[in-house]
Amino acid sequence: MNKPTTFTIKDIARNLGVSISTVSRALKDHPDISSETKLLIKAYAEQVNYRPNVLALSLRRQKSNTIGLIIPAIVHHFFSSVISGIEDLAYKEGYNLIICQSNENQHREAINLQTLIDHRVDGILVSLSKTTQGFDHFREAIDNGIPLVFFDRVCEELESDKVITDDFEGGRIATNHLISRGCKNIIHLAAPQHLMIGKKRRDGYCEALKSHNLEVREDRILKCDTPEEVQTLRNHILNLAPDIDGIFAVNDSTAIAAIQILQKNDYKIPEDIAVMGYGDGPNATIIYPELTTVIQKGYEMGRESVKLLLQRLNNPAADIHYQTKSFKPALKIRQSA
Amino acid sequence: MNKPTTFTIKDIARNLGVSISTVSRALKDHPDISSETKLLIKAYAEQVNYRPNVLALSLRRQKSNTIGLIIPAIVHHFFSSVISGIEDLAYKEGYNLIICQSNENQHREAINLQTLIDHRVDGILVSLSKTTQGFDHFREAIDNGIPLVFFDRVCEELESDKVITDDFEGGRIATNHLISRGCKNIIHLAAPQHLMIGKKRRDGYCEALKSHNLEVREDRILKCDTPEEVQTLRNHILNLAPDIDGIFAVNDSTAIAAIQILQKNDYKIPEDIAVMGYGDGPNATIIYPELTTVIQKGYEMGRESVKLLLQRLNNPAADIHYQTKSFKPALKIRQSA
Repeated sequence: MNKPTTFTIKDIARNLGVSISTVSRALKDHPDISSETKLLIKAYAEQVNYRPNVLALSLRRQKSNTIGLIIPAIVHHFFSSVISGIEDLAYKEGYNLIICQSNENQHREAINLQTLIDHRVDGILVSLSKTTQGFDHFREAIDNGIPLVFFDRVCEELESDKVITDDFEGGRIATNHLISRGCKNIIHLAAPQHLMIGKKRRDGYCEALKSHNLEVREDRILKCDTPEEVQTLRNHILNLAPDIDGIFAVNDSTAIAAIQILQKNDYKIPEDIAVMGYGDGPNATIIYPELTTVIQKGYEMGRESVKLLLQRLNNPAADIHYQTKSFKPALKIRQSA
Repeated sequence: MNKPTTFTIKDIARNLGVSISTVSRALKDHPDISSETKLLIKAYAEQVNYRPNVLALSLRRQKSNTIGLIIPAIVHHFFSSVISGIEDLAYKEGYNLIICQSNENQHREAINLQTLIDHRVDGILVSLSKTTQGFDHFREAIDNGIPLVFFDRVCEELESDKVITDDFEGGRIATNHLISRGCKNIIHLAAPQHLMIGKKRRDGYCEALKSHNLEVREDRILKCDTPEEVQTLRNHILNLAPDIDGIFAVNDSTAIAAIQILQKNDYKIPEDIAVMGYGDGPNATIIYPELTTVIQKGYEMGRESVKLLLQRLNNPAADIHYQTKSFKPALKIRQSA
């Protein structure tokens, strides 16, 4: 057995000052790469006696019957519901699941992806980290022919299968519910706006206000999507409190943290200020008053993501159009609003 | 490059009616296997032209810089704290982490383990599933020279490095705290007794009662360690309620579920019945009254598990004695007790 060469595609990329993806695609005659670039890269690869790691390639062609999953934060109940849905279907279909956590960090997400590729998973499910604003690291999977399915936190820039909740609709029905209970001055505790879920839920909030002739005020939209940020913005929220009668928080844990600081300052929920969450995790029924929120079907989204992935794994040669499956959100009305 | 034979160690095991571990150890001249068995297995292996998968072996000898983790249930806050501790140290030391969830199922745990071995992780961290009562599936990792570290839910039967909390002490200080607040009739909502954490916390509870001359009554120890089981045992708990003044629950989520059914039936917490949890997750400060509980250092346990594993990975030839690191639990006193 020949020892594989130690000169890698990464070395070529570094030495030529181009991206790994460019080298990889040039060596595979990808049409996106100009002929000039291809010739240059191939000549250099020949000069340094580069050849693909045949050992790895030989193994890659074998199916590993493993699906990889990259999630931003294991601690969120929503993601553990998604994982249950993924596992139930994957194991039933004879696939194992290995999970990596990006910890809301784009760099870690890229390492996760490389780890899963190195470990020869058959396909990868991804929910983007909050800090991810570039998507080049997903190119290597795509270039290697490993199917990707994005769920919940997806990006518009990459063509792939996607599973989402209709977050615009979720923001709209949550805000409409507050308005229907008589709220006229509603603040929104929002997720980062480069995340589609952040943008869509906010857009839904704005749409609901407009459709009821209520003013959309930028000073009533706070970037605040964790209990820690609620603590940081404590004084700001308490300064706004006398003038507001409703809060729509982008997730349950933020809504709960807001309820707690308001109650400690003698506001009655929902009499003084009604509060809506988003997600319907188990904490929603631990807080008093129990949280009115938007149901997100994590388990079903997990199953659907696996379904889309299996379609590609079972028909590797088929040219299937990329699909986006969208789940309808629903209200779960309890006592907080 | 030769194509690897398709006749595997599993085929030999099946055809001879012995375990995979026996075949594997026989072929490696392991002293635990009798000479007669070795001769038989080797003769058969030669007859069917068995040889180890050299491709796999060759790759196995390369480090993958990946640590595998098997946890029972991602949804528990304790395990997400452990994962944070593991990741922070592992990534700092240049290792990636891939995670599998056993879902409290011994069969799934065995599949997880095989998946991690197949994916050539350098070492494996494990917390046992609730249903795991046999440990043969861990032998293959040990036979393959892949170091294992068990944490939190460990077993006595396998020699390995272990990281635990002193659960006996935790059960003792939790129960002592209830007694110091005047409780004389304390029930224990317990985990399964084949789990060391279940047994030790219960033993600590019994010890605290005895040392205060309080009777240990079997009818006051209920196998009940999830919110779902609290619902199932709802009537039983409410029947006991008039005669008790304290509850020590084996984890926070069980304590919270118990508080909720008691409050719905007009018991005042802690005035009528004081309630102690175990774990100190974020829900402990969402419930009203806030939960008095036992602090479990998940993050630190995660880091310590990686430390023990790295010791073995960095000194593969060294004959290091197996170690058990034990963390001291501490009380977190809030309002529920």
